[in-house]
Amino acid sequence: MSEKLNQLKELYGEISDLNNAAALLGWDQQTYMPAGGGEARGQQLATLGKISHDKMTSDEFGKLLDELKQEFAGVDPLSSEDAAMVRMAARDYDKATRVPSEFVVEQAIVTTKAFEAWVEAKSKSDFSIFRPHLEKVVELVKKYISFFPPADHPYDTLLDDYEPGMKTADVKVIFDGLRSKQVELIKAIAARKQVEDKFLHKKYNEEKLWNFAADVTKQFGYDWTRGRMDKAPHPFETSFSVNDVRITNRFEADNPLATLFSAMHESGHAMYEQGVNPAWDRTPIGHAASLAVHESQSRMWENLVGRSLPFWEYFYPRLKKVFPSQLDGVSLKNFYKAINKVEPSFIRVNADEATYNLHIMLRLELEIALVEGKVAIKDLPEIWNAKMNEYLGITPPNDALGVLQDVHWSYGSIGYFSTYALGNLVSAQLWEKINKDIKGLDEEIRKGKFDSLLGWLRKHIHTQGRKYYPQELVQKITGSKITPEPYVRYLTTKYSGIYGL
Amino acid sequence: MSEKLNQLKELYGEISDLNNAAALLGWDQQTYMPAGGGEARGQQLATLGKISHDKMTSDEFGKLLDELKQEFAGVDPLSSEDAAMVRMAARDYDKATRVPSEFVVEQAIVTTKAFEAWVEAKSKSDFSIFRPHLEKVVELVKKYISFFPPADHPYDTLLDDYEPGMKTADVKVIFDGLRSKQVELIKAIAARKQVEDKFLHKKYNEEKLWNFAADVTKQFGYDWTRGRMDKAPHPFETSFSVNDVRITNRFEADNPLATLFSAMHESGHAMYEQGVNPAWDRTPIGHAASLAVHESQSRMWENLVGRSLPFWEYFYPRLKKVFPSQLDGVSLKNFYKAINKVEPSFIRVNADEATYNLHIMLRLELEIALVEGKVAIKDLPEIWNAKMNEYLGITPPNDALGVLQDVHWSYGSIGYFSTYALGNLVSAQLWEKINKDIKGLDEEIRKGKFDSLLGWLRKHIHTQGRKYYPQELVQKITGSKITPEPYVRYLTTKYSGIYGL
Repeated sequence: MSEKLNQLKELYGEISDLNNAAALLGWDQQTYMPAGGGEARGQQLATLGKISHDKMTSDEFGKLLDELKQEFAGVDPLSSEDAAMVRMAARDYDKATRVPSEFVVEQAIVTTKAFEAWVEAKSKSDFSIFRPHLEKVVELVKKYISFFPPADHPYDTLLDDYEPGMKTADVKVIFDGLRSKQVELIKAIAARKQVEDKFLHKKYNEEKLWNFAADVTKQFGYDWTRGRMDKAPHPFETSFSVNDVRITNRFEADNPLATLFSAMHESGHAMYEQGVNPAWDRTPIGHAASLAVHESQSRMWENLVGRSLPFWEYFYPRLKKVFPSQLDGVSLKNFYKAINKVEPSFIRVNADEATYNLHIMLRLELEIALVEGKVAIKDLPEIWNAKMNEYLGITPPNDALGVLQDVHWSYGSIGYFSTYALGNLVSAQLWEKINKDIKGLDEEIRKGKFDSLLGWLRKHIHTQGRKYYPQELVQKITGSKITPEPYVRYLTTKYSGIYGL
Repeated sequence: MSEKLNQLKELYGEISDLNNAAALLGWDQQTYMPAGGGEARGQQLATLGKISHDKMTSDEFGKLLDELKQEFAGVDPLSSEDAAMVRMAARDYDKATRVPSEFVVEQAIVTTKAFEAWVEAKSKSDFSIFRPHLEKVVELVKKYISFFPPADHPYDTLLDDYEPGMKTADVKVIFDGLRSKQVELIKAIAARKQVEDKFLHKKYNEEKLWNFAADVTKQFGYDWTRGRMDKAPHPFETSFSVNDVRITNRFEADNPLATLFSAMHESGHAMYEQGVNPAWDRTPIGHAASLAVHESQSRMWENLVGRSLPFWEYFYPRLKKVFPSQLDGVSLKNFYKAINKVEPSFIRVNADEATYNLHIMLRLELEIALVEGKVAIKDLPEIWNAKMNEYLGITPPNDALGVLQDVHWSYGSIGYFSTYALGNLVSAQLWEKINKDIKGLDEEIRKGKFDSLLGWLRKHIHTQGRKYYPQELVQKITGSKITPEPYVRYLTTKYSGIYGL
């Protein structure tokens, strides 16, 4: 192997170590850190981030890359792991060097204040508190875009940070093929008799539910000798190496089963990171391909597996044994319907599979308009509510349940949202392929067996790490780039059964 | 304030951030890290350690120090906080730069293997497995000494790493004043009727004991908004800032009360770190003065407070309420005697207050002889056993209960042990002064009140951080350097009462 590449890997390894250490500091902040530790932790994260950034933008790194780009010129990254490393290292270097340090500092200051303002605005349901901060955030985002070469659309630059290679035009086409069909489906469902789900909101014992959820993730194949599940204010997945990939979870008394579905979701993310080729740990291709591909894994385990009938044919008797009184008299079929209840609602994170993507499309449209300068920040609440009415037939009674619900914009994370919806689409697209490749998968799931499924995902997705751009990977596996049809088919079939459409 | 000093503080702050991040990685390793995470964690710690060391030994740091040493020449560090910072930064820089990186790498390799060999040797109680590794460790230690200017005694160089400024000759004088008196005391106790302590080894509920221990630390004044207690294989204290100081604990079914005394011990360490002047966080004087001073705090809360009669006058009724059946029929006086039982035993960490220091003296004598080349490694087990017999009147039946019991030598930590005994001495020396300054302290403790005591420690010890060398600090507070008499007086008074000497 190239001596230069070894040097690059060594340097990238140190950067990875710093980033992984920072990730542990972040995990601790969300799980065990005592309240008093916050200020020093911010300082420690800033120092680690600065050193990591300095190394990534160092002359040493740049020089090595220049030489390696020459050395690997003409080598196809799709067929050479070394070339893939060089390609991804170059991508990271380019992103890091284009943005001046002063901008990063300015952004940190603005978004810290914006976050605080958002917390207050949301708690008071008063958009005017957040508005001046969001204006500054959007100005910064535009400035950020200016550091990069002009793209087909300015929003492309943002999208590319979260979904490498993805274009605004592509997302628009994908979502255009989806929007009307999802709206139609929801209208059809609304015309039917609603399913009964009161028993899901009874009192469930937290510890028992937590343990049940943990057991499900183990049965999926989430390796607890290389992972664990801790309590945190929000469920998330984080990793510090391919052999230390953790998830968090929470318990909400009024929505107890969410603990179970969050565990499935986060373990889906975690199995992805646990499955990356271990030889690539600490290298430019030693992580996941993109947020959408990541989300395809979490949503697959949570929804296509975890909200499916075959899954519950196996697990429902077990759940009933743990919660006999709560589920007394509830048939498997009615339980299955309840956990798949469709109901337009205001809050994205609580949305069901049928309505979820519409929440995302709304956000994407607003974000593009903001970047294009076609909407004024002050008009956002009104536009938000109008779109909610158009897509979901409901109008938020206040901004806390509307435009203020998500934290993302306060962080400056504009361009992130569509990866959630794209992940849903990819999950269904993969699912069709998987069911062609694994005959009788439903039968296996009915027996609580997931090794064929996990084995398939390991081989086609997980081990591949970040070797491919997401669209390359999806194309390679399914023969097509990301497309909405499989998801529409999936939803239609599923809800036809549940709501008798 | 000097511009140069600000620059030094900024640089030292970054080094502190790296070290604090590494400390969190170490804490996680002992508490929550899944088994699989070990290898990557070692790599991450190595990277953080390397970057921290590079910064500490950088030309930038050296140049700043040179200029600051000139600027502060003639300024007394005992009366100037800035001068104290320069003095301690210079000390750290000197230590870091004298030792070549290649040596550090060699040491890491040798001690990693030595540790593995020690684990095996101890489990098989076979010194011959550890012997060749210990020989290498001792060779390395001698090499380490050679990097420093000749001292009065070569062992001084090692001692100074753990107890700044302490000399071998000083420790010898201190221990010489102690040895015969402790041996005499133990003989006198052995001639008396042994106390009864069977009830301490009944079955105690882990969770209840854990919570009781936690409550005691809170009542002491350990601030849980800036700390916490987690389960780990061994109890320890660690901190990531003055506002995030954590302890760990464990539960051993055959020695349940150890959880309680460990909590007192570790919270003693933790209150020290929580009490350091917060303005000095991330600076060269933002930690404790030395290991002995640290140990004086932990031992004071564990022993002088936590094994005292006034303490249990308050807490015994409370403990009895939690464990009524275990303590049924056990009077306060008998409980007090039981937790202070003196019995020569093989294992240092389980030793009582009267025998503990003799375990340390034995180790110190062997370490000095090793450094002087006056004993052969192969003869260590025999010499160990002979000394045990001389000091404690018992002979270890095997090496696991003898020379192989402690991990320290496998780490290369030669020079560490005496800080444990010195800490005991300092705790009693401070205690005499405290009881002069706080009239009626026993009365307060009898009421479960510890704020006068903690306030005194805060003022005289904790806030002082690492501004003083340990002997300077002890001298400043008590009017004398470390001396054994107060400890001898303390032991004699205490055990006269318990054993009717």
